[in-house]
Amino acid sequence: MLACFKTKFLNPAWLLVVILAQVMLLPLVGGAMINSPSGADSQVPALMPFPASIELTQDKFRIDEKFSAGGQEQPGGRVFKAVARFMFRLSGRTGLFLEQDFLADQAPGPKRSLSYQYEKTGRLIPNEDESYILEISDNRIELRAPTDLGILRGLETLLQLLSADDRGYYFPCGRIEDRPRFTWRGLLIDSCRHFMPLEVIKRNLLAMAAVKLNVLHWHLSEDQGFRVESRTFPELHRLGSDGLYYTQDQIREIIQFASDLGIRVMPEFDIPGHSTSWFVGYPEYASAPGPYRLERGFGVFHPVFNPAHPGTYKFFDRFFREMSSLFPDPYLHIGGDEVEAVHWKENPRIQAFMKKHNLADNHALQAYFNKEILRILTKYKKKMVGWDEIYQPGLPKDIVIQSWRGTQALIDGARRGYQGLLSNGYYIDLCETAERHYLNDPIPPDSQLTEEEKKLILGGEATMWAELVSPETVDSRIWPRTAAIAERLWSPQEVREVNDMYRRLSVISVQLEENGVQHLRNQDLMLRRLAGNSPVNPAEMAALKTLVRISEPVKGYARHSQGRKYTSLAPLTRFVDSCFPESLEAREINRLAEAYVSGRTHQDWKKLKATFDELAAASLLVSSLSGRIPVLREVGPLADNLKELVSIGSRSLSHLASKTKPGPGWLKNQKNRLEEIKKPRAECQLAVIPAVEKLLAALEDKPN
Amino acid sequence: MLACFKTKFLNPAWLLVVILAQVMLLPLVGGAMINSPSGADSQVPALMPFPASIELTQDKFRIDEKFSAGGQEQPGGRVFKAVARFMFRLSGRTGLFLEQDFLADQAPGPKRSLSYQYEKTGRLIPNEDESYILEISDNRIELRAPTDLGILRGLETLLQLLSADDRGYYFPCGRIEDRPRFTWRGLLIDSCRHFMPLEVIKRNLLAMAAVKLNVLHWHLSEDQGFRVESRTFPELHRLGSDGLYYTQDQIREIIQFASDLGIRVMPEFDIPGHSTSWFVGYPEYASAPGPYRLERGFGVFHPVFNPAHPGTYKFFDRFFREMSSLFPDPYLHIGGDEVEAVHWKENPRIQAFMKKHNLADNHALQAYFNKEILRILTKYKKKMVGWDEIYQPGLPKDIVIQSWRGTQALIDGARRGYQGLLSNGYYIDLCETAERHYLNDPIPPDSQLTEEEKKLILGGEATMWAELVSPETVDSRIWPRTAAIAERLWSPQEVREVNDMYRRLSVISVQLEENGVQHLRNQDLMLRRLAGNSPVNPAEMAALKTLVRISEPVKGYARHSQGRKYTSLAPLTRFVDSCFPESLEAREINRLAEAYVSGRTHQDWKKLKATFDELAAASLLVSSLSGRIPVLREVGPLADNLKELVSIGSRSLSHLASKTKPGPGWLKNQKNRLEEIKKPRAECQLAVIPAVEKLLAALEDKPN
Repeated sequence: MLACFKTKFLNPAWLLVVILAQVMLLPLVGGAMINSPSGADSQVPALMPFPASIELTQDKFRIDEKFSAGGQEQPGGRVFKAVARFMFRLSGRTGLFLEQDFLADQAPGPKRSLSYQYEKTGRLIPNEDESYILEISDNRIELRAPTDLGILRGLETLLQLLSADDRGYYFPCGRIEDRPRFTWRGLLIDSCRHFMPLEVIKRNLLAMAAVKLNVLHWHLSEDQGFRVESRTFPELHRLGSDGLYYTQDQIREIIQFASDLGIRVMPEFDIPGHSTSWFVGYPEYASAPGPYRLERGFGVFHPVFNPAHPGTYKFFDRFFREMSSLFPDPYLHIGGDEVEAVHWKENPRIQAFMKKHNLADNHALQAYFNKEILRILTKYKKKMVGWDEIYQPGLPKDIVIQSWRGTQALIDGARRGYQGLLSNGYYIDLCETAERHYLNDPIPPDSQLTEEEKKLILGGEATMWAELVSPETVDSRIWPRTAAIAERLWSPQEVREVNDMYRRLSVISVQLEENGVQHLRNQDLMLRRLAGNSPVNPAEMAALKTLVRISEPVKGYARHSQGRKYTSLAPLTRFVDSCFPESLEAREINRLAEAYVSGRTHQDWKKLKATFDELAAASLLVSSLSGRIPVLREVGPLADNLKELVSIGSRSLSHLASKTKPGPGWLKNQKNRLEEIKKPRAECQLAVIPAVEKLLAALEDKPN
Repeated sequence: MLACFKTKFLNPAWLLVVILAQVMLLPLVGGAMINSPSGADSQVPALMPFPASIELTQDKFRIDEKFSAGGQEQPGGRVFKAVARFMFRLSGRTGLFLEQDFLADQAPGPKRSLSYQYEKTGRLIPNEDESYILEISDNRIELRAPTDLGILRGLETLLQLLSADDRGYYFPCGRIEDRPRFTWRGLLIDSCRHFMPLEVIKRNLLAMAAVKLNVLHWHLSEDQGFRVESRTFPELHRLGSDGLYYTQDQIREIIQFASDLGIRVMPEFDIPGHSTSWFVGYPEYASAPGPYRLERGFGVFHPVFNPAHPGTYKFFDRFFREMSSLFPDPYLHIGGDEVEAVHWKENPRIQAFMKKHNLADNHALQAYFNKEILRILTKYKKKMVGWDEIYQPGLPKDIVIQSWRGTQALIDGARRGYQGLLSNGYYIDLCETAERHYLNDPIPPDSQLTEEEKKLILGGEATMWAELVSPETVDSRIWPRTAAIAERLWSPQEVREVNDMYRRLSVISVQLEENGVQHLRNQDLMLRRLAGNSPVNPAEMAALKTLVRISEPVKGYARHSQGRKYTSLAPLTRFVDSCFPESLEAREINRLAEAYVSGRTHQDWKKLKATFDELAAASLLVSSLSGRIPVLREVGPLADNLKELVSIGSRSLSHLASKTKPGPGWLKNQKNRLEEIKKPRAECQLAVIPAVEKLLAALEDKPN
């Protein structure tokens, strides 16, 4: 079965539609396709990021123990290692005892199931070619790319294509031509507010590679900690880190590890503000006299470098000389955000310096500082990257401005000829939905930029700020939502169907843990710790899990205003920390309510009723647990809210089923109750409130 | 409430009994104690290893956010770091926002809740003092020890004492005097058959510290891989490891990490056999001509060093000079086990050498080799450790012989004046029960050794051989069972009540994951991967989990004879790998059957029946899954066996309930069926077979 029905499209939702249509028109080999969404899903591989162009047929490349891979790469090379990882993962998922000794021998040959070929070794710089072509026939797979980076990207796509039917595992036949929309697809990891051990960085690099991200933006200095060994200024790490820093050997280890995955490592040293940790060892470069000690709180603080002291620039000259040789990336990020000028105002020498140099205000003073830093970075062949605030007229055009303020700033920058990166809208520490991040486009369709200007927008970065994450929870704040951002940055702009994104996201999320990230598995661990040594029976644990699965941490920065002062020593092990930032279960429940309200089927009614009953039962059990276990005491009110919420939901369902309209007093009363229920408890919100709101709205607007 | 009922005992089971007795006699503060085993359990902290001496009162030291710790240690010191970890863990378990900046300031003072004091810094050598005294009153905790190592051990005990009641968290008041029974309490990790990345070693070191183990025996060379960077002989790691080795910096990092936990790191370089990986780069020191390539299979292989070649000893002189300076431990393990003499026999020069030196047989030749190695080690101030085979008359008395062959060999050694370690009976790779390891005593009560001879038995080591473990599964093979071995090696010989050990083990197991080990949480990850992208509903996943939780991998080395040839590239991601070595759930079911058979209560009958029904339902769902998901196909027969097993169980229950005796033909038939059911399927066995066997036996022997 070689020649076959072929389709070509961009949107995975269309793909689903076409294949479903196909199901109805064509006789099926093996007859395994099931005419239900879930059955159909299993036939449409969950590719993420979705490729630029894809054609699939109904043919299958069958995988057995003879599956082998080969190409031009020698042991030790990037692709050689990537193929070995691919084979381990393929074997891991299928349980097949692959016969090839892929750790030692990947010589090319006509008998190889998978043959790859590339033209040259890709450089880890922006605008390097990462495209690839993947062709799968029923007896051969070919992967070709201009650079080895393309091979790496293609291997990830191929693994995502892995499918199964009654006969075994297979890859669907077809052809994929793929290339990224943006060249800079990053994840910022903040190792400062909470130190992230090496293995956290490594496992997240592997997960990044799985969704084709290519820049680790490593935030390495902050008020709370200076995290790199400096041999030139050893008091930086000795006194500025509580002993929690990366040695230079470890930095090199990470850079090599990332390079093997085709990922750049760009360091950020945030100056002149956000710099308390530097001054513990070197107070002489601060704008106010010391002594300084490490900041434990979170926010924007006063300590700031002294831009009027010539010694400051001598210090940075030596410092950046050292760091420029440690980090090979052509870019170096200097932060530059949120400078508090209090110490500048208080220091008469700085004030005198400003007068002398005609620096009208603090912005001008920071601009002066940045120009000096730029001079130093240029000397050491680094291009400067900074947050919005670094912009000033006259800066060279090879710098990159990273926007935390918004897309408009990015567009304005591009109009002025500056390269930019979007991070506004990708702040994954704010616990917002994947949908919100997904629909946030670095170049909105209505941007009216010229093609030339559009090229200046290099891409974007998800930012994992670490005030409220520990090594144990950080993965669950990054994944799976960052996979949706990865798709936004890689896939064609037109790929933006939200429901289909979520369908694929839930599959990819499970696959990501294969790379070592722990976003799913650590939840149970955290719930077990919350239960402590107390006698908690399985039903109670299940109830706790049910509650955690439909709860979300309060959004944005609201956790800081819930009555507890967070510091870098505060526990991040509570109920709120074990919640996922976005509840996919709640999303399903809310969708179910929507479906019921619009379709009014008895089946949906029953499902919804059962769900409410289950939630009500769970709320009772958790209430009881919270009375017994001190660390869960704060969860009691949340459980009580849930109980009341589902009670409103159930009563609404009764009205809707019996087609009786409740009195206006009742409705008003319930809505008032909902407003109460929406107030955070235990720093969490119930993510299923929209379901009940939809039912109430249905009772109000469209009484049957 | 200061003066209070006090008890003093060794056995934690007695403690339980006495506290239960106390419950009935004394009025209780707060009245929270529940008069049921689980309620009582929550009042008896799960200490493991159980201390040498313990007195607890009913007073409570209440923990709030003002809890603080202080002592003599300066930042960077071993105890300073241990206290910081203690505070993080305490805060993590209780959710308390502790106010002390324990990362910066642990100065002593009268206001400290916890004060510690030690006399001197302990050295990481055998027989160093690890004892401590812990005194908890209702307003103050004092921890004193001769060395800082004792403080580390005491902190772990204190954390295990953490308890909760309605009012909050507390430590029970009392006094613990504790010291280890054996000075050498080790875990062998084999990084060769499967490479174990640095984080695997680190998290297991943390878990070791939690149960007071103090030696990491690091198996670093094998047929399958040479895992240490050698600067003297760089082809060892370059050609002998597939690129999977530890750099010397990483080795030093682990040694420092372990030292901070009071754990020694003893390297093992296994020679003259088990040495294929050395010869890939240096075939000239082998007994047969090369070339050699890395061994992928498992077993005992022919490659062996050439003891007749003078170059061999020059090589080892330089090699051990390098490794002696890299590893500070006074001991160095040379393996010495399982030498195959085939290549010695085939090499005429070696045969001639033997004649010339009057070496009668291969044992004599190995003895010659060992003496030369001993000379080299002595030159570099290392004491030699080796497996049983290294013994020969005339060896100096400061060597240590590690027994994989058995306790008798150890006793024989002690009689001859040699120091010994027990590993026979602690082979945790064999997937045997914690009970079996727990009751295996290095000095059995009937040993008849003199006190002096007993002192020569330094302790023991659990051995995590890595043929069938990956970084993903290795933790579940080590933990929690190794905690039971840790208790055997630390606690008084009289502490050996098995049921109480299991009660405490299940609590400690959950706590261990706080240290990063993943023995519990990775199971779900593995089950999710097994389900793959297939549409698997929650009930099916729950059924799969039910089956996995009552299944165990086949014991001993039987996995190698189940029809698949394992290599270091084989997948370790199948159903069997996701099973725990010992099913604690199955143990409970088997105990329930035992309780029913002896007590014949209707309550036990109902529980057992419900359990069988649940297992039957799960077996049906898994049967269906195994038809749809290729990697689960092998599990179908296991599920079918379970279905039949519980059917026999249920029918037996019916007979027992109705007090009808089945015909002898039926019984015989069922027993024949059980023999069939006992045969491994999917390399697993059903761990609940004993429950049904007990019911059948009851039907047979004691018809009511």
